[in-house]
Amino acid sequence: MTVGLLISDPFASSLLLLALLWLSAKVGGEIAYWLRLPTVAGELLMGVALAALHQKYPIWPDVAASPEASVLAYLGMVVLMFAVGLESTVPQMVKVGFASLRVALVGVVAPMALCLLGTRLLMPGLGAWSKDLFIAACLSATSIGISVQVLRERGAENSPEGRVIVGAAVLDDILGLLVLVAVSGMVLASADGTSIPWMILGTKMFVAIGFLALAFSLGGAMTPVLFKIASRLRGEELLLPLGLAFAFLLAYLGNLAGLAPIVGAYAAGLILEPAHIRLLEEREAHGLQDLLRPLVVVLAPLFFIQMGSRVDPVALVSATAIQLALLLTILGVMGKFIAGYASGRGIRSSVVGWGMVPRGEVGLIFVAVGATLGVDGGPLLSPEIKAGVVGALLLTTVAGPIGLSFVLPGSLREKAVDRTPGS
Amino acid sequence: MTVGLLISDPFASSLLLLALLWLSAKVGGEIAYWLRLPTVAGELLMGVALAALHQKYPIWPDVAASPEASVLAYLGMVVLMFAVGLESTVPQMVKVGFASLRVALVGVVAPMALCLLGTRLLMPGLGAWSKDLFIAACLSATSIGISVQVLRERGAENSPEGRVIVGAAVLDDILGLLVLVAVSGMVLASADGTSIPWMILGTKMFVAIGFLALAFSLGGAMTPVLFKIASRLRGEELLLPLGLAFAFLLAYLGNLAGLAPIVGAYAAGLILEPAHIRLLEEREAHGLQDLLRPLVVVLAPLFFIQMGSRVDPVALVSATAIQLALLLTILGVMGKFIAGYASGRGIRSSVVGWGMVPRGEVGLIFVAVGATLGVDGGPLLSPEIKAGVVGALLLTTVAGPIGLSFVLPGSLREKAVDRTPGS
Repeated sequence: MTVGLLISDPFASSLLLLALLWLSAKVGGEIAYWLRLPTVAGELLMGVALAALHQKYPIWPDVAASPEASVLAYLGMVVLMFAVGLESTVPQMVKVGFASLRVALVGVVAPMALCLLGTRLLMPGLGAWSKDLFIAACLSATSIGISVQVLRERGAENSPEGRVIVGAAVLDDILGLLVLVAVSGMVLASADGTSIPWMILGTKMFVAIGFLALAFSLGGAMTPVLFKIASRLRGEELLLPLGLAFAFLLAYLGNLAGLAPIVGAYAAGLILEPAHIRLLEEREAHGLQDLLRPLVVVLAPLFFIQMGSRVDPVALVSATAIQLALLLTILGVMGKFIAGYASGRGIRSSVVGWGMVPRGEVGLIFVAVGATLGVDGGPLLSPEIKAGVVGALLLTTVAGPIGLSFVLPGSLREKAVDRTPGS
Repeated sequence: MTVGLLISDPFASSLLLLALLWLSAKVGGEIAYWLRLPTVAGELLMGVALAALHQKYPIWPDVAASPEASVLAYLGMVVLMFAVGLESTVPQMVKVGFASLRVALVGVVAPMALCLLGTRLLMPGLGAWSKDLFIAACLSATSIGISVQVLRERGAENSPEGRVIVGAAVLDDILGLLVLVAVSGMVLASADGTSIPWMILGTKMFVAIGFLALAFSLGGAMTPVLFKIASRLRGEELLLPLGLAFAFLLAYLGNLAGLAPIVGAYAAGLILEPAHIRLLEEREAHGLQDLLRPLVVVLAPLFFIQMGSRVDPVALVSATAIQLALLLTILGVMGKFIAGYASGRGIRSSVVGWGMVPRGEVGLIFVAVGATLGVDGGPLLSPEIKAGVVGALLLTTVAGPIGLSFVLPGSLREKAVDRTPGS
């Protein structure tokens, strides 16, 4: 009798998983609170713990592999970046544009140079210079979501430092794309004697920058018109679905142009001004940012837990991996700190530096690409090197929010105590 | 060079799809407004239109097949039912319990009897009586999500009629489960001479009712304790993730007991009382229902669009299918109308009747089961019959909200005009 099976539906187990993830996130946040760490660090570490739990007891669900949790975590990051973009305007970002550009450029070059030098000098046994170059490239691009969440926790996402960090991270996304194409080209070129793919490199940069230019010019001109039409609609509850549709559309188009979807979503937030949606906000008696907040609250912890759960705890336990991870972490943090000083006068370089420290998705993409590149008959990155690089990505990802929370004013503890009635 | 492919991520296309779905939902709502239909009907019909568009131009995405849209639509229905449950309490539901039970029982028996009689008398060419019985069973269970959304649009979800409808629909879910097991058992028994599986039937009923009894007794006793512990946590933004975790956990457990997950989520909402979460609500300066609202606003339209898109527009175009669809629709509406009169004194039977009219998910599950049952060397339901039954499910699903909006006071048009500033 298969009737029972047909009624129990395919998504039911994801309900259990999501419930467990939200509970774990809140327990992780509580532990982080007692350790005086930012909430995000607690959620990331809880993700690592869940991955270890799954490895030891396979009956425990594999968080990293759940398609439902993945899509929600992914949408959470897109929605978070849209919400962050809404808090700034295009002119505000232009104002910090040069500072961001300096930070982004130094933030790619300095960690790469330091890591390349460090691995050549201190760990010469790793192999050809192209390997070291690729490893160094993995540490180049900042993962923006984590710092943004810490900035939000401390109410600093709209400070000059916050804007420089976000702006530099967006530019980092373009630079990361170029570094990946260039470095993989150089690795392959050094292996089989072909030339570096300058044409591909140039085209990719042109398309990515072209998208952002179009979004800010044409998009900025069309958005008021689009939302004026939208406010003529007589239906209810238009603001949030239409706002999200706008953000998701730009995220998709940005992705077509080679950028991460979160960059397009952030651009959508920058373009959309309060004036464009005032009629809809008045009619629905809620601001778009207020409406987005519950979505972020529900979805973002899933992202951070899942990012932590992508780490393979067992592969990390090898002398080479641990050495490499520690070395890369120290050099990677130093590199981004140097970048912080590039932000110029009036900006606290330590805040910017720590804000640029977390690596994540982009670094993981580098590692995935590196695992597919074959050099001298073997993979470019051995399992040990891979584990070391991933370990370094994880350490920077946890170290970033911790460092940022130390240099940012305001402590979670005081706020939480103030808010608890009767204690 | 596969680098570009690796960077463009697997979920990007679902961003485009979601943006299109939200836009379509709002356009559908606008058309519904001009036709003086409820928004849900517009979204359902827009779903049918999108399915037709995909059939004609396969480049247009297949909404019904998208796993990302499916999981969001599914979660939307779970969250909606949790929110609806929050608006009532267990004692309030007990008060309308007998009325709901009468409506549910009559609402299963009357449409089945009418449809069985109708098809035997008016369409004798369909085949064995077991076929007619199975077809009639497909029309027995109410799809609650649609009526709930119309009740919410009209602010009537917390009226006595609203409670009777939701209560009867929850009981319908248990009855539907039993009918499916009983009818498939009878069909198979009549085909190969085995006996009707009374044991399975009894066990299923016992487990399902046992779950609800446990949820209301033990769950009701434990919930205040759980949320008291939760309010001791020092982290921020606890209320919504923990509330959802609670709802999803009960939805999962309910599904283990054989019920649809939305029934468990509704039970979670009933159990959770304002007093249990007052501390958290005060600390976060938001009520749980306010926090759930944006989630429902974003997710529920995806459910209604996708439900519409599950219809195969081409299969509907056959004389037998159209005849069967119309016949079943008329008899199915009449049957639920009779059920409305079972609700007793002080309850407007026309509201209850129309509220019970929409069939949907459960009916589709019946059809799917029917397609797998083989009788006399062929499938129980031929493609034509299948199309006719699905057509009837669709027609009731659209007719229900339209009828309900006529008998419920208050019109969308007036409200929308009032709210538009300066018009």
